[in-house]
Formats: sequence, C-alpha cells, structure tokens
Amino acid sequence: MDPDALAKAFVEHYYTTFDSNRAGLANLYQEASMLTFEGQKIQGSPNIVAKLTSLPFQQCQHSITTVDCQPSGPAGGMLVFVSGNLQLAGEQHALKFSQVLFINTVVQTLSKIEW
Amino acid sequence: MDPDALAKAFVEHYYTTFDSNRAGLANLYQEASMLTFEGQKIQGSPNIVAKLTSLPFQQCQHSITTVDCQPSGPAGGMLVFVSGNLQLAGEQHALKFSQVLFINTVVQTLSKIEW
Repeated sequence: MDPDALAKAFVEHYYTTFDSNRAGLANLYQEASMLTFEGQKIQGSPNIVAKLTSLPFQQCQHSITTVDCQPSGPAGGMLVFVSGNLQLAGEQHALKFSQVLFINTVVQTLSKIEW
Repeated sequence: MDPDALAKAFVEHYYTTFDSNRAGLANLYQEASMLTFEGQKIQGSPNIVAKLTSLPFQQCQHSITTVDCQPSGPAGGMLVFVSGNLQLAGEQHALKFSQVLFINTVVQTLSKIEW
C-alpha cells in the first residue's frame, strides 16, 4: 500500500470512529501522543479521549473535503492535513474543521473547528 | 529559547519574508523539503520558490490568528499549525489561510487558501 493510501485509510478510520464511537479513539493514540484542540494541549491517550468525549456536542458527522499527505523523516512518518465539514445533530449548517495528523510510531493531532 | 517560542519566531520570519521578499524563502527550504500547495506537491527549495513566486498575486500581507505547536520526535522537530488572514493588494476582503509547517532538519509545509 502506498504511503498516501495508508494515510488516507487512517484518516477515514479516525473520523468513522470519531462519529460512531468516540471512546474508541483511545486505540489510535498512545501514551506519548499529544492532541492540541483549539489551542489546548493534552497528552496521553486517556486524557485525549476524556477531552474528545467531553466536547460540547454528541452526535456528529465529519465529511472530508481534502486530505494532503507528505512523507516525513527517515522513520517513515506521515504528515497529513485534513479539511472538511462537521455536521452536528440538530444544527442546520455544518461547521468547518481542519486537522493536522502526524502519524509515526506515535500519533499526534492538532484540530480546529470554526464554531 | 523554549521550543514554542522558537517555532513562533520561525513562523513570524517565514511570513515576514513571504510578504516582503518571497524569493528569500529559498533560504528556509532545503533540497529535501516538500511544499503542498492546494493539493499540489512540490519538492526542493528552487521548485518551491518558483511555485511561491508565481502565485496569482504579488503584494500580500499575512496576519496570523493562531499558532499551535507540538514537539515531534526524538530529533527535536516541531509540528506547527498556523491560521490567519491573507490580504491581497487591491482587494477589499481578506482571504483565510491555514498552513502546516514541520520544522526539522528539513522544513516541510502544507498550505491552504480559501479563495
């Protein structure tokens, strides 16, 4: 599988899990993982999942518009920049989101939502 | 200098150079650098600068809204996610831009502009 396809499959899996079983994201983060959510830095899989499951919305649906990938470093990491729409249950208009995922031995993510 | 401050200084320098002397960005990219601009991948400092200097606008002014940083990997890299406004000369409204910079022994960037 080429690295771009692998990164896109990971992104697909990440958002499907986010939308269907957010606590399941625990399996995609490690102890050394860091999440930055709207400027707040959170480290470690349990803390990251606690943050993600306590966001001020429950049911949601991510629609991905763009996925840009770059291989990064000799260790075979991937740098991924995702943008798209986030539809919250009961809301008429979708929000825009963007997220950086650094996929290496450890997964790191940085997210923004335009509320 | 702490890593966050270093990354922010780099970002400041990057956009000041972009706005005042775009060809000077050649010094910030290396031969192994990659730029993804609106989905197009370009490798190597000379090709990257050729792309950046041929964008369909000349005078511009970046205003940074957010800079999020995460240290990345044992080699001391930094993962940086920037968002802000891009004012083009002669245009009434600013565009929104966002950019990922991976600052390591090699600099990699991924950019998006909402035209």
